[in-house]
Amino acid sequence: MKRLSASNLYVALTHYPVINKHGDTIASAVTNLDLHDISRVSRTYGVRAFYVVTPLQDQKVLIERIVSHWVKGVGAAYNSKRREALELIRIRDSIQEVRAHIREREGQEVKTVATCARAAGDHLSFSGLRSQLRSGVPHLLIFGTAWGLAQEVLDAADYVLEPIRGATTYNHLSVRSAAAVILDRLTATCG
Amino acid sequence: MKRLSASNLYVALTHYPVINKHGDTIASAVTNLDLHDISRVSRTYGVRAFYVVTPLQDQKVLIERIVSHWVKGVGAAYNSKRREALELIRIRDSIQEVRAHIREREGQEVKTVATCARAAGDHLSFSGLRSQLRSGVPHLLIFGTAWGLAQEVLDAADYVLEPIRGATTYNHLSVRSAAAVILDRLTATCG
Repeated sequence: MKRLSASNLYVALTHYPVINKHGDTIASAVTNLDLHDISRVSRTYGVRAFYVVTPLQDQKVLIERIVSHWVKGVGAAYNSKRREALELIRIRDSIQEVRAHIREREGQEVKTVATCARAAGDHLSFSGLRSQLRSGVPHLLIFGTAWGLAQEVLDAADYVLEPIRGATTYNHLSVRSAAAVILDRLTATCG
Repeated sequence: MKRLSASNLYVALTHYPVINKHGDTIASAVTNLDLHDISRVSRTYGVRAFYVVTPLQDQKVLIERIVSHWVKGVGAAYNSKRREALELIRIRDSIQEVRAHIREREGQEVKTVATCARAAGDHLSFSGLRSQLRSGVPHLLIFGTAWGLAQEVLDAADYVLEPIRGATTYNHLSVRSAAAVILDRLTATCG
């Protein structure tokens, strides 16, 4: 099966604004395994950069410590595969800053695609997004933590990707699992 | 896209025998997020049971504590979606015990399919396994922790699934990510 390179695809994992169990807008804490898993998924599928978004200073310090240990510190020699993945990480305060960084890098606006487990409103289908990616225009996939992206992020995005449907109605994949499935589906071609 | 139900599919996550960075056979420790993520993936794709394999008593106690908290304890009321996923977990000492349990349940031998990041020898392709699953015969997907399944597990399995290929040669997905991608690919039909 021929696979598409995702070289015009960026990923952002955002910790604010996201919602909690009750639908309140919160800032979530960074999870170490999110950084490792999603950077490895990003490296596997040729994603250009993996932005970790949080406005919280202590969280940024934590991410920086984890990344520098494995990219520059003792860990870099210990596990080069981990380094190659974590090297993709860029820390930013907000989605707006991520857009600005990509704009500067690409010389054009990035198309933003929010992801969401709950079905609501118009969605861009997986096949629709695959087609758009073939045009070469840069796209940014935005993933949420906690109980998902706050409505304002969904509203501000150019598109909201359709939810992942498995074999059942149950759709409560972790963000780590969702990122892996979505990136795999986006780079697949059938036949 | 029509999706196949995985109701003849079982998943096992094994902590022994697996290998470490140097290729030595070890028993690995259970990771909390593996239980949560892979049980959610299993629930999403209609997997019948998620066996967590470890011969270590302290590890079994740990798994039991985590599962019972969310399935029977305070956690069950707090998060029913987590409960529905973790309910799929069965703890067993070895792959042999998993096979015996499935044999008893299904009245026939399960076909075992080991998974591996490194390419070696004959592999069953994803499309080949999808075809086999359509026959209705029960299949057990075996995932490894640490640096992967020990050679003896690969040798004893009926099949070894081809490694996941992304858009690059990098293939060091976490077991959580690999399980999500594999189950999604196995239940997908193109078109």
